[in-house]
Amino acid sequence: MSPATSKPSEGRRRVQVDAIRPHVDRGRFPVKGVVGDSFRVEADVFGDSHDRIRVQLLYRRKGTRRWSETPMVPQGNDLWEASFLLEEPGAYQYTVEGWVDALLTWRTELAKWIDAGVEVELELREGALLLEAAAERAKENDDDAEALRLWARQLREWADDPSGRGAPSELAVAPGLLEGELPRLMETYPDRSRTTRPRRTLTVEVDRKRARFSAWYEFFPRSTSPEPGRHGTFADASAMLPYIREMGFDVVYLPPIHPIGKTKRKGPNNRVTSGPGDPGSPWAIGSAEGGHTAIHPELGTLDDFVAFRRRAEELGMEVALDVAFQCSPDHPWVAEHPEWFRQRPDGSIRHAENPPKKYEDIYPLDFETEDWEGLWDALRDVFLHWMEQGVRIFRVDNPHTKAFPFWEWLVSELRDRDPGVILLSEAFTRPKVMYRLAKVGYAQSYTYFAWRTEKEELVRYMEELNRPGVREHFRPNFWPNTPDILTEFLQTGGRPAFMLRLVLAATLTANYGIYGPAFELMEHTPREPGSEEYLNSEKYQLRTWPLDREDSLRHFIARVNRIRREQPALQRNDTLHFHPVDNDQIVVYSKSDPGGDDPLVMIVSLDPRHTQSGWVDLHHLPLGLDGESYELEDLLGGERYDWGPGANFVRLAPHTSPAHIFRLRPHDSGSSSGGSS
Amino acid sequence: MSPATSKPSEGRRRVQVDAIRPHVDRGRFPVKGVVGDSFRVEADVFGDSHDRIRVQLLYRRKGTRRWSETPMVPQGNDLWEASFLLEEPGAYQYTVEGWVDALLTWRTELAKWIDAGVEVELELREGALLLEAAAERAKENDDDAEALRLWARQLREWADDPSGRGAPSELAVAPGLLEGELPRLMETYPDRSRTTRPRRTLTVEVDRKRARFSAWYEFFPRSTSPEPGRHGTFADASAMLPYIREMGFDVVYLPPIHPIGKTKRKGPNNRVTSGPGDPGSPWAIGSAEGGHTAIHPELGTLDDFVAFRRRAEELGMEVALDVAFQCSPDHPWVAEHPEWFRQRPDGSIRHAENPPKKYEDIYPLDFETEDWEGLWDALRDVFLHWMEQGVRIFRVDNPHTKAFPFWEWLVSELRDRDPGVILLSEAFTRPKVMYRLAKVGYAQSYTYFAWRTEKEELVRYMEELNRPGVREHFRPNFWPNTPDILTEFLQTGGRPAFMLRLVLAATLTANYGIYGPAFELMEHTPREPGSEEYLNSEKYQLRTWPLDREDSLRHFIARVNRIRREQPALQRNDTLHFHPVDNDQIVVYSKSDPGGDDPLVMIVSLDPRHTQSGWVDLHHLPLGLDGESYELEDLLGGERYDWGPGANFVRLAPHTSPAHIFRLRPHDSGSSSGGSS
Repeated sequence: MSPATSKPSEGRRRVQVDAIRPHVDRGRFPVKGVVGDSFRVEADVFGDSHDRIRVQLLYRRKGTRRWSETPMVPQGNDLWEASFLLEEPGAYQYTVEGWVDALLTWRTELAKWIDAGVEVELELREGALLLEAAAERAKENDDDAEALRLWARQLREWADDPSGRGAPSELAVAPGLLEGELPRLMETYPDRSRTTRPRRTLTVEVDRKRARFSAWYEFFPRSTSPEPGRHGTFADASAMLPYIREMGFDVVYLPPIHPIGKTKRKGPNNRVTSGPGDPGSPWAIGSAEGGHTAIHPELGTLDDFVAFRRRAEELGMEVALDVAFQCSPDHPWVAEHPEWFRQRPDGSIRHAENPPKKYEDIYPLDFETEDWEGLWDALRDVFLHWMEQGVRIFRVDNPHTKAFPFWEWLVSELRDRDPGVILLSEAFTRPKVMYRLAKVGYAQSYTYFAWRTEKEELVRYMEELNRPGVREHFRPNFWPNTPDILTEFLQTGGRPAFMLRLVLAATLTANYGIYGPAFELMEHTPREPGSEEYLNSEKYQLRTWPLDREDSLRHFIARVNRIRREQPALQRNDTLHFHPVDNDQIVVYSKSDPGGDDPLVMIVSLDPRHTQSGWVDLHHLPLGLDGESYELEDLLGGERYDWGPGANFVRLAPHTSPAHIFRLRPHDSGSSSGGSS
Repeated sequence: MSPATSKPSEGRRRVQVDAIRPHVDRGRFPVKGVVGDSFRVEADVFGDSHDRIRVQLLYRRKGTRRWSETPMVPQGNDLWEASFLLEEPGAYQYTVEGWVDALLTWRTELAKWIDAGVEVELELREGALLLEAAAERAKENDDDAEALRLWARQLREWADDPSGRGAPSELAVAPGLLEGELPRLMETYPDRSRTTRPRRTLTVEVDRKRARFSAWYEFFPRSTSPEPGRHGTFADASAMLPYIREMGFDVVYLPPIHPIGKTKRKGPNNRVTSGPGDPGSPWAIGSAEGGHTAIHPELGTLDDFVAFRRRAEELGMEVALDVAFQCSPDHPWVAEHPEWFRQRPDGSIRHAENPPKKYEDIYPLDFETEDWEGLWDALRDVFLHWMEQGVRIFRVDNPHTKAFPFWEWLVSELRDRDPGVILLSEAFTRPKVMYRLAKVGYAQSYTYFAWRTEKEELVRYMEELNRPGVREHFRPNFWPNTPDILTEFLQTGGRPAFMLRLVLAATLTANYGIYGPAFELMEHTPREPGSEEYLNSEKYQLRTWPLDREDSLRHFIARVNRIRREQPALQRNDTLHFHPVDNDQIVVYSKSDPGGDDPLVMIVSLDPRHTQSGWVDLHHLPLGLDGESYELEDLLGGERYDWGPGANFVRLAPHTSPAHIFRLRPHDSGSSSGGSS
């Protein structure tokens, strides 16, 4: 026979705590939240038999010892629920405790016996014993301890008089026994010596609100000079900030601002050779003038950068920097730390390659280097350098080509210093890899949105992003374009294509961004047919943008961003719901805010060429309009419509109104407070 | 500033292993399997960058040190898969390892460079270094080590001659380089020093096959005497075994066989008083004659019981005993271990109660006793006692009213001694409680099946039982009746009701059972209207059953059980699939077996009163009959039908054929081996 299994140290912990949620991989990674959230926790908790249980939600700031707690409330089917407030950025831990509560069980059964008219002498004597034990636990509060002892004495007196004051009919009306004082005392001093708590605590990483709700504007500062051909400076870029602010953005994101390599520098349109005046790609980082902590001299000085950042902040915006961990052959690290790169047998350094392509202007860092610890420190110090200059938002280039253990450590390091730091993952790769980057700490992530143009694709993708297992950690940031992505839809769809993609990006998720001025000026010519690269891309050359052009979308964008700021429903992702419409070229979805504001209904055409119409049915959950009529106000166009019960007709003309953002108000909502209920 | 986060001891474990499945609560509880299963494991595994990874499934018998392993195969989208054989009962552990494989990456890239016609001198020299390192790892196999060194030398020779034998065109056809010997050697000696393996290993508890596939027959041995009024004995019960075997059952389950209490003994029809001849309820366990390890003298001796068990086994059946952990007031433990019961203030022992009901013939055990360890040992010893008498299957009464930690320990104790032990949980309670009992080790579970009579209810319930999170641990055992459950459907539906409920129970899940002879004799009168208790229930009195009655369902049951034994599709739960039919009184579902036998299609009327007809469409996954015609053979009735593409008509008459069990065979399946494909 095998040796006996060992018993637990305490076999009388009879409550089972199961399936605490939200969680990411059962606590291997943190859930994400933002400051001000009421963080709702659910758990399946139950005991054996009919005994009553009590369940508490425990929570604390990570790094503190003392738990706060709040009672969980049963929702039926062994599901319990409670919430706590996420008060400040940083990590909170939470867990759930449950125990069989002898006092509550006694009280529940006593009430039933009394109700059934059954004599309860023994129950009263048992209660007296339980109350005396509770009085012991109450000893830090003299008044309560005394009250419990008095109740114990009272119960015994009643027990001695089972056909008089201790009769069920008398006890049913005894003040404070079944309701009031005694239940309150019993709830305050439970016996928690056999409490069950799961081994693993869960964590929620709390970001500031901008991690969940932000509108990004990417631009190249070197293209901001008013004189064509002159390299733009931070001072020029500062002059453009009011223009960006007027459009309503809150994050200005700059491609890398560091010295650009000269060896193998790329020419315009990604030509492998460059001329003397060609500025090169900002992502070929590093030259004799410095690396990831230096500033490209043609943009200005560190002071100029700080002045730029300050100006943005005065205007209510934040500057986000690009962190691209790769080096031009001229980067100082190449000479100082050749061991951080992969050496070849001939002593050369291996450049980036993806057979059969070679990228000779770029050396990747080798995360398998023997000095990985030194490399990690240096990379962290790049972030810390810019955080010391006041930068708290970073867009990280290709994080999926660097080791995951590095990111997990790095994010933890950075959040230790400033839990307000926000990292956006620029990983356009396989879904599980993108999700893992979010799990290890990226606050926001690029997505496949740019390529989701059909209704079915959009609906499925939103379902995927909002499903359990994704929504707890992955915050999508939708970009209709980037310097690398000019989709066929934008190339060929004209002005309506830009408008409808903007509305989709800005209302499907709470984080979105555009690469401008290319976007608002509807730049749409690819380098060559079939390519998603821009012709004459700013990545390889200076551009001058006619920001005042008559047909610019800047005012349209400003309107969309104003609606986003005014409508809390657009500042979250979890209330998105699609609604039926009998036309595959129209997508209808709603968002609401638990705060009680009117819900919004977005009706967007996916066809930039033809007028589309259809019948829309909003009489479904979660709007709850069953059989009612209501008013729709188009926050984009200003028109108002009265819609009746059943399906209602919409018509979207690409050049005048490819999209509506409706505020929906039931007709009787204003007067219901005076109603008969 | 907070202290820096510590780095991992090895930051270069670049592979991420995620979501290994199946699992139950990420390894908190074991998954269940049965002997002979090919146990399929999946995991999401990926690294950063384009480097190639390799992934291995590791598994071992629990308690052994050495892992066996098998390569996992990528299925796309970062999903990897492999299987291992569950060879014997007991626990197996499994986990997944992955690593970035420099050899595989090198070989993949080399092939691409060669294919692109790019010179590979440096790649060859890098390969030589990798092979020399591999030769070091191969040092226990002299031949392979030597072969690797030879290849290294060969690569260097080619590198020295880049426009001759080392040219891409020559290398593309070099024997053993891109296919054959070198790839094989490289696969055999990877560098696994930076392998990733999740902290927690998963466990699969392997049962013998009967845990998943069994047909139970419950009967009261005391009602087997041929003389009305005489208490049946084990000898009488033995005489009934051939009758049960002819019906095709493989588990005979007896209600408790222990001495029955005399104090407060219940009379017929659960009357609170009994007369001198009343036998009492077998669940009121214990008298002066003994407790849970004793045998009720009127049934016989321990030897008689063992003879009965042996006779059952000769006939190919197994005996299951009832374990009901509760005591009559006369149970020896009441005097020997009063501390195992809850004492009241007047020195009495608390009987079972659920206000406002009291059960004065029963004392529950107190799992909060100070001597819980002694109690646990005594309860375990009850099982061990009967296991020593050769019993390996137990039906446990009301396990949800005993502490969960006890069951988890107990099952582990019992399986340590005999991993072939099977416990059936008789918990009719809330779903999460029932699932938890399965998680802590119950091999089979009673269900809500008896009350699921509408089509929608049945479909939803089967979906619930087969969903991830349930199917890994919960094995349903469907009972159309029990001594406690005579449903309204059986009370009122007549013979067709019994027939169709039997077919549903026997084909929807692989484990099922009936309480007989009440079932085959269609006993259907309740104690009173609205009750689910039998009138003159055997629980409280002796009965004599006319087993040879002309209208008995015994031959019908025998046919159903024979089909179950002959058709592997009915011996598992995971291939169940419902099919459309345009009549809510008919349910159509299929089951198949991966072994390649023909799939079965069950077509069952839910209406015991009227003939029902409808159009059935089987042209959907998973049967894959798109556009084909096929033959259906009714294994119950023997008829054959040819069905064409599209919907086909069925008609179910309650008294002649309330159900079909069709074997489905495509018309061309016999001849396809001679076909043109």
